[in-house]
Amino acid sequence: MSTTSSTSQETIVALATSPGANGAIAVIRLSGPDALLICNKVFKGKDLLKQESHTIHFGTIRDGEQIIDEVLVSLFIAPNSYTKENVVEISTHNSKYIIERVLSLLIRHGARAAKAGEFTLRAFLNGGLDLSQAEAVADLIASNSASSHQIAMQQMRGGFSNQLKQLREDLVHFASLIELELDFSEEDVEFANRDQLRVLIMKIHQVIAKLIRSFEQGNVLKNGVPVVIAGKPNVGKSTLLNALLNEERAIVSDIAGTTRDTIEDEINIHGVTFRFIDTAGIRHTEDVVEAIGVERTMAKMKQARLIIYLFDPTQDAIADVKQQIQEVEALNIPFVTIINKSDLLSEEQRASFAELSPIYISAKQQLGIEELKDELLNQVNLGNINTDDVIVTNIRHLEALQLTKQGLEKVLDGIDNPITSDFLAMDIRQALYHLGEITGTVTTDDLLENIFSKFCIGK
Amino acid sequence: MSTTSSTSQETIVALATSPGANGAIAVIRLSGPDALLICNKVFKGKDLLKQESHTIHFGTIRDGEQIIDEVLVSLFIAPNSYTKENVVEISTHNSKYIIERVLSLLIRHGARAAKAGEFTLRAFLNGGLDLSQAEAVADLIASNSASSHQIAMQQMRGGFSNQLKQLREDLVHFASLIELELDFSEEDVEFANRDQLRVLIMKIHQVIAKLIRSFEQGNVLKNGVPVVIAGKPNVGKSTLLNALLNEERAIVSDIAGTTRDTIEDEINIHGVTFRFIDTAGIRHTEDVVEAIGVERTMAKMKQARLIIYLFDPTQDAIADVKQQIQEVEALNIPFVTIINKSDLLSEEQRASFAELSPIYISAKQQLGIEELKDELLNQVNLGNINTDDVIVTNIRHLEALQLTKQGLEKVLDGIDNPITSDFLAMDIRQALYHLGEITGTVTTDDLLENIFSKFCIGK
Repeated sequence: MSTTSSTSQETIVALATSPGANGAIAVIRLSGPDALLICNKVFKGKDLLKQESHTIHFGTIRDGEQIIDEVLVSLFIAPNSYTKENVVEISTHNSKYIIERVLSLLIRHGARAAKAGEFTLRAFLNGGLDLSQAEAVADLIASNSASSHQIAMQQMRGGFSNQLKQLREDLVHFASLIELELDFSEEDVEFANRDQLRVLIMKIHQVIAKLIRSFEQGNVLKNGVPVVIAGKPNVGKSTLLNALLNEERAIVSDIAGTTRDTIEDEINIHGVTFRFIDTAGIRHTEDVVEAIGVERTMAKMKQARLIIYLFDPTQDAIADVKQQIQEVEALNIPFVTIINKSDLLSEEQRASFAELSPIYISAKQQLGIEELKDELLNQVNLGNINTDDVIVTNIRHLEALQLTKQGLEKVLDGIDNPITSDFLAMDIRQALYHLGEITGTVTTDDLLENIFSKFCIGK
Repeated sequence: MSTTSSTSQETIVALATSPGANGAIAVIRLSGPDALLICNKVFKGKDLLKQESHTIHFGTIRDGEQIIDEVLVSLFIAPNSYTKENVVEISTHNSKYIIERVLSLLIRHGARAAKAGEFTLRAFLNGGLDLSQAEAVADLIASNSASSHQIAMQQMRGGFSNQLKQLREDLVHFASLIELELDFSEEDVEFANRDQLRVLIMKIHQVIAKLIRSFEQGNVLKNGVPVVIAGKPNVGKSTLLNALLNEERAIVSDIAGTTRDTIEDEINIHGVTFRFIDTAGIRHTEDVVEAIGVERTMAKMKQARLIIYLFDPTQDAIADVKQQIQEVEALNIPFVTIINKSDLLSEEQRASFAELSPIYISAKQQLGIEELKDELLNQVNLGNINTDDVIVTNIRHLEALQLTKQGLEKVLDGIDNPITSDFLAMDIRQALYHLGEITGTVTTDDLLENIFSKFCIGK
């Protein structure tokens, strides 16, 4: 594989911490066979080549006689490092000038600027992580809620890979039994009992199907639950959004026709992120239901995993409300009916709305907001995620799982409508191939390029 | 001192690297007597209390059973650390969520959020750095050019302090001789030879005066050379600025009367920063000379350490130009006369401008820009700074040096117009006090508060 062979002898270098002025220190990371050697050329202090792994050394980085910085150098000697190569981390003062000088100095002495994700790519190529674990590193860094963090951490620690490995081994076992039959093809023997094979394939199929189903949940946890607030104009949608966000993020514009790009805001309820989708411009938002026939608004509504239907009992006629609710129901997306300005309601009015099972709030008075939050959480039914459940969040994994599933179904079909062992073996190998794509047992340069180019430089 | 006693028993914690999404790792730093103990409570891996200083350990940070992150923990055991206290640096994945979780977890287990500059304050209070060195740490982080970096590095490494220490010791020696005379005041003896004292004081005075003079140079190197580009409207000032900046940073607005806040742009010529000062709004800029009587423009001109006077030979009459140059000359600030659009000049025209010793450029064609840069460097006369020269860049140091100088002059006066030993001793002690303020031998809580509150958190 060219990705492997072309890079493994080079020593790469990059800033590993965030750039930006607001920090005290920065960490520059070197990885490769010459990491210690190159650093040693510019470091004045102890001889780094004579030090042990996992030790830290104070000294100066020098360009000739000129001192660039006083630094701490951390050594990780192969294979005891993230990349399984020699790794040196140089902790410098966080000055852009110093960082640039040190990076160019190291490059001048034989290192090469690392590409995005190249450290993690090397960790993968050198067997430190499988591919789904490597991908989880990026997810972990991007995680911004308890649930997205938990899924990424579980995946990075191998929860996902372990389950797939077991499935794959079961499949490999059968594939080899079938392939053994090929050697005896003229004798018409069956080493692999077809009934046992069917049972096993169905068992695997079931697990794969469960993983595929977990994607919707996983995706929601990773990216947040998309929510649309619908309702007639002036029922208080912006006020409700503000109440939920607890700050004045939604800009209420007086100027009719002011349009802006789609804005999104997020709130985090007990570790689950809800993304409020606003259609372009405040005026459009206020028209969500009125303009329900408009393609754009409909597209937005359809993206939602949850619709909050808000109405104002002091303005909206109950017949109107019921009709609008019917229209929303037709979208087949979970929705919550909310009565705003509930502080202005009489008991009789309340009774007339009872059949809608609404939640009563006052966005302005901040009443009922906590109850609404509980109901949102309840609606997406994510409250009791088992932390040990394996959850798929990656679209690439989903695709590979779907292809694996199709492969398995083809195998099942081949058992039920008997085909020759060589075709059956081919079908199993096909399923194995797609499963291998997830953990990286099967990779191509394009695949790796595609995955790691999305990482930041320095990781 | 309350700053010392109230904090030294507490263990502080902060993010030491830049916040921001674009990094792979983040470093969280703990310092204080319980740094290892607190980290050990949330770290699952080796027992940190049994490890040696300057070693690195892999493990997980856990909140109860929940894994927050896989981390590397670096240990620095007192007094072998930056702060001279126990220090632990936790290298986590760079996720805002993870950083917040780890910080709050450590605080829950007994650490306190560090205040701005508190790590460096402790380094100072515990004798790891003197005050001018501690201040240099902030300068070093802020350094953005070769020269500002060099000055800060020299100061941090003690170049500045060492020279002051020597001076101070000389003074202390004489102060004690004079004070010895007080014990024998009734016998009218002179342990301190007044002629020798005068020679020494004058020697010290000379060094202090040189340090004070270095401030202007130091300030320029640290903060950049303020430059104003002057000239009549439409001579191409914005184009020249762009040519110097080599990118379209100056916004050329077509709308008359558009005013903006003062913008500044910087270029770096051979390690020296030049700050181009633009008066408010492009229209105003174009009017710098026309509006020369206007207070605001004048104030801007006076801030400059260098004025570039630009004119367009195809439009400006030579008499006009001469008059304007006279006005600029009256400001007594170095200036460079530049003829723009030189590609359109005839030989005769060139001859008529010769007496102005101008530099010929074409901002539009990017001609003569390198020559102009050389001339700018030449004008500020900083080309050959001796790297061993001690340069003062800090206004606080300047003030203390000026007070020291006044004190020394009072001492000289006391020798020449003899006063009693007790008054002389008092004057010397006064000079010593101001000198001590620079290195921190003499400090107050207010002074420390004032210095360290300007640091970033985590340093």
